[in-house]
Amino acid sequence: MPTPAVDLLKAKLSSPSGTPDVKATNPNFIPPTQPLTPSRQLPTSVALPVLPAVEAAKRLAAFSAVDRHVGLEHKVIGIGSGSTVPYVVDRIVAQGLEANKDRVFLPTGFQSKELIIKAGLTLGDVDQYAKIDVTIDGADEVDNELNSIKGGGACQLREKVLAEAADTWVIVADYRKNSHVLGTTWTQGIPIEVVPFAYAKVLTNLSHMGSPNALPNGKPGLNLRMGKMKAGPVVSDNGNFIIDAPFPPEMMQKPAELLHAIKMLTGVVEVGLFCDMAKAAYFGNEDGTVTVRADDGSVGQISSVPNTPIVASQAESASVEA
Amino acid sequence: MPTPAVDLLKAKLSSPSGTPDVKATNPNFIPPTQPLTPSRQLPTSVALPVLPAVEAAKRLAAFSAVDRHVGLEHKVIGIGSGSTVPYVVDRIVAQGLEANKDRVFLPTGFQSKELIIKAGLTLGDVDQYAKIDVTIDGADEVDNELNSIKGGGACQLREKVLAEAADTWVIVADYRKNSHVLGTTWTQGIPIEVVPFAYAKVLTNLSHMGSPNALPNGKPGLNLRMGKMKAGPVVSDNGNFIIDAPFPPEMMQKPAELLHAIKMLTGVVEVGLFCDMAKAAYFGNEDGTVTVRADDGSVGQISSVPNTPIVASQAESASVEA
Amino acid sequence: MPTPAVDLLKAKLSSPSGTPDVKATNPNFIPPTQPLTPSRQLPTSVALPVLPAVEAAKRLAAFSAVDRHVGLEHKVIGIGSGSTVPYVVDRIVAQGLEANKDRVFLPTGFQSKELIIKAGLTLGDVDQYAKIDVTIDGADEVDNELNSIKGGGACQLREKVLAEAADTWVIVADYRKNSHVLGTTWTQGIPIEVVPFAYAKVLTNLSHMGSPNALPNGKPGLNLRMGKMKAGPVVSDNGNFIIDAPFPPEMMQKPAELLHAIKMLTGVVEVGLFCDMAKAAYFGNEDGTVTVRADDGSVGQISSVPNTPIVASQAESASVEA
Amino acid sequence: MPTPAVDLLKAKLSSPSGTPDVKATNPNFIPPTQPLTPSRQLPTSVALPVLPAVEAAKRLAAFSAVDRHVGLEHKVIGIGSGSTVPYVVDRIVAQGLEANKDRVFLPTGFQSKELIIKAGLTLGDVDQYAKIDVTIDGADEVDNELNSIKGGGACQLREKVLAEAADTWVIVADYRKNSHVLGTTWTQGIPIEVVPFAYAKVLTNLSHMGSPNALPNGKPGLNLRMGKMKAGPVVSDNGNFIIDAPFPPEMMQKPAELLHAIKMLTGVVEVGLFCDMAKAAYFGNEDGTVTVRADDGSVGQISSVPNTPIVASQAESASVEA
Repeated sequence: MPTPAVDLLKAKLSSPSGTPDVKATNPNFIPPTQPLTPSRQLPTSVALPVLPAVEAAKRLAAFSAVDRHVGLEHKVIGIGSGSTVPYVVDRIVAQGLEANKDRVFLPTGFQSKELIIKAGLTLGDVDQYAKIDVTIDGADEVDNELNSIKGGGACQLREKVLAEAADTWVIVADYRKNSHVLGTTWTQGIPIEVVPFAYAKVLTNLSHMGSPNALPNGKPGLNLRMGKMKAGPVVSDNGNFIIDAPFPPEMMQKPAELLHAIKMLTGVVEVGLFCDMAKAAYFGNEDGTVTVRADDGSVGQISSVPNTPIVASQAESASVEA
Repeated sequence: MPTPAVDLLKAKLSSPSGTPDVKATNPNFIPPTQPLTPSRQLPTSVALPVLPAVEAAKRLAAFSAVDRHVGLEHKVIGIGSGSTVPYVVDRIVAQGLEANKDRVFLPTGFQSKELIIKAGLTLGDVDQYAKIDVTIDGADEVDNELNSIKGGGACQLREKVLAEAADTWVIVADYRKNSHVLGTTWTQGIPIEVVPFAYAKVLTNLSHMGSPNALPNGKPGLNLRMGKMKAGPVVSDNGNFIIDAPFPPEMMQKPAELLHAIKMLTGVVEVGLFCDMAKAAYFGNEDGTVTVRADDGSVGQISSVPNTPIVASQAESASVEA
Repeated sequence: MPTPAVDLLKAKLSSPSGTPDVKATNPNFIPPTQPLTPSRQLPTSVALPVLPAVEAAKRLAAFSAVDRHVGLEHKVIGIGSGSTVPYVVDRIVAQGLEANKDRVFLPTGFQSKELIIKAGLTLGDVDQYAKIDVTIDGADEVDNELNSIKGGGACQLREKVLAEAADTWVIVADYRKNSHVLGTTWTQGIPIEVVPFAYAKVLTNLSHMGSPNALPNGKPGLNLRMGKMKAGPVVSDNGNFIIDAPFPPEMMQKPAELLHAIKMLTGVVEVGLFCDMAKAAYFGNEDGTVTVRADDGSVGQISSVPNTPIVASQAESASVEA
Repeated sequence: MPTPAVDLLKAKLSSPSGTPDVKATNPNFIPPTQPLTPSRQLPTSVALPVLPAVEAAKRLAAFSAVDRHVGLEHKVIGIGSGSTVPYVVDRIVAQGLEANKDRVFLPTGFQSKELIIKAGLTLGDVDQYAKIDVTIDGADEVDNELNSIKGGGACQLREKVLAEAADTWVIVADYRKNSHVLGTTWTQGIPIEVVPFAYAKVLTNLSHMGSPNALPNGKPGLNLRMGKMKAGPVVSDNGNFIIDAPFPPEMMQKPAELLHAIKMLTGVVEVGLFCDMAKAAYFGNEDGTVTVRADDGSVGQISSVPNTPIVASQAESASVEA
């Protein structure tokens, strides 16, 4: 299975004493089964492929996030999911073998795991690391104060463990996820992971809390999420069920309160609301630019990054930017 | 939540000393969240609703199967899934409260559980019954010798436990499931439940056994089944993954051998091939009739049943038929 | 498998139109594999067996709890675990077939499930009932304000779901569980159920919160609970791990705050602290009497109950007592 | 967390360009919670600690197994569990950083995972490798033909996946596991992993196959394994139950037939019988020597190995031995 970006970098860096990559060269290694974005496999140190504007903006968002938050001193790195994240891995790979050789990468799920493996990076075991230097992940929607909804893919538990364990947690997404108030574009409700035998009780609890059975537009509201590729409810990677619970806008404006009230319900394993966790969010816009929102309330715009990342410690790279 | 068929029968049979139904009358009871087929809620002892031909044939298939295989002496009954099964429950309800009051019904999954509860029947706990009198279930495809493929809904493990534990196992389905050789209409492969950490090994094993990576028509072959309502692989109700493994026709002609070879693989939990288990299969045809195939090789045709079932022991009802 | 209490009552109540018990008479039914306390199988409406003082006191505690809290109008009843609970089931059975015939019993785990089945009571499916009338359960330790520690058996999640869903939740236990402050006799720590991949992170969180690595007596403190009948960590019935986290007395004096702080940790599924939930606690003493503590702060003493329970609605039986 | 063997080797091999070990130096890394055998932490390239005879024999068994079966060309290595296995890891570490730097180690469970991590070796993800070069594991009992019973620790499923995926599977154990016929010293029965909802059915199946409810010595026979650190049945790392099923000697003499019959039962996930898999078994004897039995029927004796392993490809080291 060819991984051109990695191979090309290897060719540059390899020396007689170079460590062969057991994963790349061992015939026993199982290639990932998921296709990756074509662009991800291109070496970013050569000419970048020309992409449609939004796609290019997502790539720019990912590259900016890596350039600003992943320094040479960061050795334990969490990789999330979403359509912007493959570009994150691309940029990390582009920091070179030297930067990556003693790093460990922790995936939030199946997709990220394959991204990490396919890129030739070292997969770490999430239960061995209580602290992470940086985690970069996607989101289903982000509000003005960097609170977010996650869990469309039913992975919010693992994603939140990797977010909470991270010194720095950064969101990368496209412009459609950039909202004033949560629930504006992501209308299907807050994804809530519950233990199977408690789902009836939790549905009742959530209904009492104000989650409606139907949305104003007539679509179904509070609901146990059903599978399409299996009969019955969706089962999460942890063996639990997922409830999608919409709430009226006045409640969604205070996501931390809502998160708190839901998480305290017995039977709830984790809530797809991430509050007061993000350091910054990078959104790829339709016009090809990137909007950056930081946890200090500042909003910025980025229109380009160098083709090749400047590889430095984060402190240094920050000073370079300034 | 009204269950007219049950209510109507209750009105007939109720007496001052009648036991109230805790499930129907208790306000704490959670109504099922899934819609049922409208016809299922109609009492079958009154005029049956007029249905499109195939739908009527599926109902006829279900009614025939119940009339022939569910006698008064049968107290532990397995209920499967599929679009024909709701009619099975209808017909069992139509046998009356007296016939059903000391019966226990074991579901093969979430859908059947809700059917049983909504019909006001007594739900049993599958892990308490080592033997079942009769199980009636659907199938994804059935061959000439009553071998079948199941597992499109990822429930084949529980379904097979209820099939194997049953003295009599009967299939109800529509005409599209009626094949000479398995794999003719169900081309996506045999559903195989595997423990997650062994999926790579089992994929390799199956590939060596002859399962192709692509089908002759170019569609994907051997594959880890991915979710649509969650990221990553489908997770079964038992917390396992599902592999869909097609095999060439010459191998599908000997399903018992294939089942055997696959089940013996370490990491395989259960295979969606049901061989030498069915007593009979009832297929609803497009013209409204039902084709019955029995395990003695006989093939019959049914064009009608009485609106109200004759409730008798199975031996008696068999003699009535003869 | 003979269930004398049930049989004896049946003989009394049976009539030609009596409903046969499918579970007792069906040869397919699997008898439970666990031995029960011998006394549990004796009909309580005949002379009660003579027991050692503490055992008699536990029985008295259980009987008192049932007499006061389980009335005829209670149809959905949760049954917990612990060495006092079998006597609870005895007393409920002694209320007679008429009282029990339309009741549903929900178990908190494997032991209670077998108690329910062996007693010939109707097992309910916990995921179908969002509300429960009364749940009676044991505890590992109870403080002055009826807060309790539970989870020595790793079942606190299901136990709490059945406690929280209950209108009335009552504790039965022996005198050793009766403490002023939690952590006095139960020193191994608060049982906390965590998702496996987050255990390292949660251990770190708990350590930062003040849970010591060693107890003052030198015994191990904060710890991932290891199995004895399996290698590696104990796995709960929900597939999770258990952390035992002791805290210093000053923190244990405010269990609601501690519960809250722990439950909010990402990766924590449920905490074995039950605060502000119990209506009353019944403790069997060494001298054969029972101490009752109620949620209004009152403390009472009970020294006997009638051999045969007065079966009435709870309102009535309360007025009888008064 | 000091790992002297590794540190010592590192000091020897380190150079300015040496890759720092992220796991050893990163303060975020969580040290394992389980104590290891003291001797395991001693560098084996210095004087070996003096051990009691059996312990020394186990170490000799482990060292011999590694010297003969783990060559420089082996890059994907499975590590099992049992009291002899820590010495296996010791010897692999003693092959040096150069030999181990591009190897990946796959654990069969929690204990092996901690051994691997504590030794500073690279942990691999078992679901990424369909083939393994060598796996070395313990066993509960081994017969004359190298068939074995495993599963006392409830890990037989993962252990068998790593055994079956291995080109070479080798057993290390002490003399008590060395039997003519299985079931001689390991009398509690064959550990069988079953899906929880099928346990009653499988118990019945096994009983019909001839597994007795009681042993000749009066001890319990066929049994659902119960927990000691949790209430109810032991739950495996895969969320399943364990049945221990003894069989009479005449059946235990044909373990492959028995394995086959049990594995084919619906509801059985994996059987703790490993037949026709082992290349060799190394048993530490009471007198300090090692008995080696190979799959060609040969039996040998080993009384010493060099303190420092000769590191070579397996072909070379085999020729050195010859």
